[in-house]
Amino acid sequence: MTTLDFTHDPRLRSWVTSAGSGDFPLQNLPFGVAAGAAGEPHGVVRIGDMVLDLRALAESGLLAAEARPAAEAAAYETLNTLFALGSGPRIALRRALHSLLVAGTPHQQAVAKLLTPLTEVDVLLPARIGDYTDFYVGIHHARNIGALFRPDNPLLPNYKWLPIGYHGRASSVRVSGTPVTRPHGQLKVADASAPVLAPTRRLDFELELGVWIGPGNALGEPVSIDEADSHVAGYCLLNDWSARDVQAWEYQPLGPFLAKSFGTTISPWVITPEALAPFRIPVTRPAEDPAPLPYLDSPRHRAHGGLDIELQVLITTAQMRAAGHPPHLVSRSSSRHMYWSDAQMVTHHTSNGCDLHPGDLLGTGTLSGPTAGSEGSLMELSHGGNNPITLPNGEIRTFVEDGDEVLLTAGARRPGAVSIGFGDCVAVVQPAITYP
Amino acid sequence: MTTLDFTHDPRLRSWVTSAGSGDFPLQNLPFGVAAGAAGEPHGVVRIGDMVLDLRALAESGLLAAEARPAAEAAAYETLNTLFALGSGPRIALRRALHSLLVAGTPHQQAVAKLLTPLTEVDVLLPARIGDYTDFYVGIHHARNIGALFRPDNPLLPNYKWLPIGYHGRASSVRVSGTPVTRPHGQLKVADASAPVLAPTRRLDFELELGVWIGPGNALGEPVSIDEADSHVAGYCLLNDWSARDVQAWEYQPLGPFLAKSFGTTISPWVITPEALAPFRIPVTRPAEDPAPLPYLDSPRHRAHGGLDIELQVLITTAQMRAAGHPPHLVSRSSSRHMYWSDAQMVTHHTSNGCDLHPGDLLGTGTLSGPTAGSEGSLMELSHGGNNPITLPNGEIRTFVEDGDEVLLTAGARRPGAVSIGFGDCVAVVQPAITYP
Repeated sequence: MTTLDFTHDPRLRSWVTSAGSGDFPLQNLPFGVAAGAAGEPHGVVRIGDMVLDLRALAESGLLAAEARPAAEAAAYETLNTLFALGSGPRIALRRALHSLLVAGTPHQQAVAKLLTPLTEVDVLLPARIGDYTDFYVGIHHARNIGALFRPDNPLLPNYKWLPIGYHGRASSVRVSGTPVTRPHGQLKVADASAPVLAPTRRLDFELELGVWIGPGNALGEPVSIDEADSHVAGYCLLNDWSARDVQAWEYQPLGPFLAKSFGTTISPWVITPEALAPFRIPVTRPAEDPAPLPYLDSPRHRAHGGLDIELQVLITTAQMRAAGHPPHLVSRSSSRHMYWSDAQMVTHHTSNGCDLHPGDLLGTGTLSGPTAGSEGSLMELSHGGNNPITLPNGEIRTFVEDGDEVLLTAGARRPGAVSIGFGDCVAVVQPAITYP
Repeated sequence: MTTLDFTHDPRLRSWVTSAGSGDFPLQNLPFGVAAGAAGEPHGVVRIGDMVLDLRALAESGLLAAEARPAAEAAAYETLNTLFALGSGPRIALRRALHSLLVAGTPHQQAVAKLLTPLTEVDVLLPARIGDYTDFYVGIHHARNIGALFRPDNPLLPNYKWLPIGYHGRASSVRVSGTPVTRPHGQLKVADASAPVLAPTRRLDFELELGVWIGPGNALGEPVSIDEADSHVAGYCLLNDWSARDVQAWEYQPLGPFLAKSFGTTISPWVITPEALAPFRIPVTRPAEDPAPLPYLDSPRHRAHGGLDIELQVLITTAQMRAAGHPPHLVSRSSSRHMYWSDAQMVTHHTSNGCDLHPGDLLGTGTLSGPTAGSEGSLMELSHGGNNPITLPNGEIRTFVEDGDEVLLTAGARRPGAVSIGFGDCVAVVQPAITYP
């Protein structure tokens, strides 16, 4: 795991004034891809409400030799090349960026020319996603959903032995801000003799973290638990939109398919392992649970494998927006509810020799908490659609309605560290199309 | 569906002598990617035991204007660009290739210079696979496997209403000839108190057809059943290697994951819709079965949506190879056992708006027949490992052993048409690694 260095020093501040508060202080420095009015898409780093052009920085002469490879790798329209470089070059660039953006740097004037207000660029997907795998490591979600689909058998016997996952659809992952269209799908009402093709009536969100893969592994070469973090390039928020009625009808025996593949929303900023280093925590599991098999366990992993990130879901309906209501918090959860860590996800995924590649994306699965108000999906919040939730303006919701905006946010904070956030993972739901 | 033209004329023969028999006569002309000793990978067309360099052909002056776009699109190290062009340019190139390779052409001498013996090139994966989706359209397989996993409930109620499918792992798809390593995975013996990480003891093959996607569709825009074939670039054989013990332990509730993602073998030749046009047949389903929902049905599809391709599985053990035994036929099946067609797979896949892209790959799922000796997996052939099959040299098999070579072949034949084949889809199984 990353050791803390000067880039984590809470006493240091950026000369970029908008970095003084909010998700993107000097201690965060996430990577992303943006396109300005003139230029082609290229790598940037976010600081406050500005983006710093890494392509221009690479050409500027402001970087020492050790920081240039990562900046040059970020010159392209995706960050896959940067991801492939791994932690050494990434850390060198982070340190250089910190030195250029910290208050008191002699280079402020030169660096200021490389900054563009966020409002003047389009922020894009940060990488070309090869494969996308979605896990199911939120044990409270697994238990809640399991109880709805299988009341007699909510948590299956394999759950505490391996991180359950499935292959997701990479092509339909979209960056935050892209609308999501209510999908059609085959639905079967309980007593109907036949299914129908219709717009889903049970559109849902899922509150997840995403994990970007950095350096890959060769086919046939598993990644050990202590090497797993060296294969992670960063983290994002992920909304695994789900059509629950489509899912209920289609999912046996091969798992979710079209109930998920119509769209997945991710936040655009790649929050680095370095930025999250202060928020690593020990991995804990209840004493009565089985110990992980040896390939999923190590002293180092036990000491540092966990993540402490607060997660939130906020909803704004069309009526609320029209009336000027702010987004309404419907759920507050935490990455502490991951029964399996991101390192265990990587190690298990490769345990059969499966090859991961730079830009592959892993989702954690829905991260619900154990208490009311911490559920990471409406399916859980409304108890399978039976108990609607009430919004501040009196509207009720069992599932997501057309015009609703669903916003995921994440923040990491602890005493003695500067808090950082992930930025928005947001999408508005559009009405279904008229089926051709 | 494609109408027959002069390229299907059974009276015409190629001047390439090895095209006189076998899988690759003048009427086939599949595309692929090959690399010679000197050159970079580029598109080729297979004729007999030779490959014709499409990059060199595009530059040769031998092609009329309408045939050049497809040849130029095949100049790269993958055929994704060719696939994206769709049927018009592909058909124009097919007709030009036919005219250059037919006996009696005035261009024989010039074209002969563009041919290389297959033995002198490396044949590679034909495309960069974006997403890989595996269906389950072989109803006899679904019933056989279902009876082993769920004796009381073999065929689930959704099966006859929609083509069940799941997202597969694109990264570990490999071209025919690449060895497959026996994977490790979590296994749980029935009465054991805990699972173990160990090499699979139940390694299996699955006999499938693969479908290459040509032009894609935009996110949110479903493809109608009558448009579906215009989104298909071609077909291949696909062996969906499976670790049955890993699958049994991991697959609930989200479906197959590491039991499949350690390797998938495909044949390298993209058999075009044009080459298969003579082997299209009506779609039939038993009178007592429900009619497909309207979005999966049309008169044109009913008349031409089926495919008549013979499929075979052959095994050669290390002992057999050492003793000079030929590959032993263990199964003979047919694409007639597809309960859902390739067009229905495409249309259903996009019914929720999911975007397909050129180079995406669809698998049909295992295509077993209804009778003994037509099962497309060892799990079925050996009745769940209970009834070993006996090979000609006296060896027995319940599952695949180290050193075994598994070969899939396919051929299309009917009276009045020249038979064509798919070439080999073959891999030898290597022993498991020593786990790190």
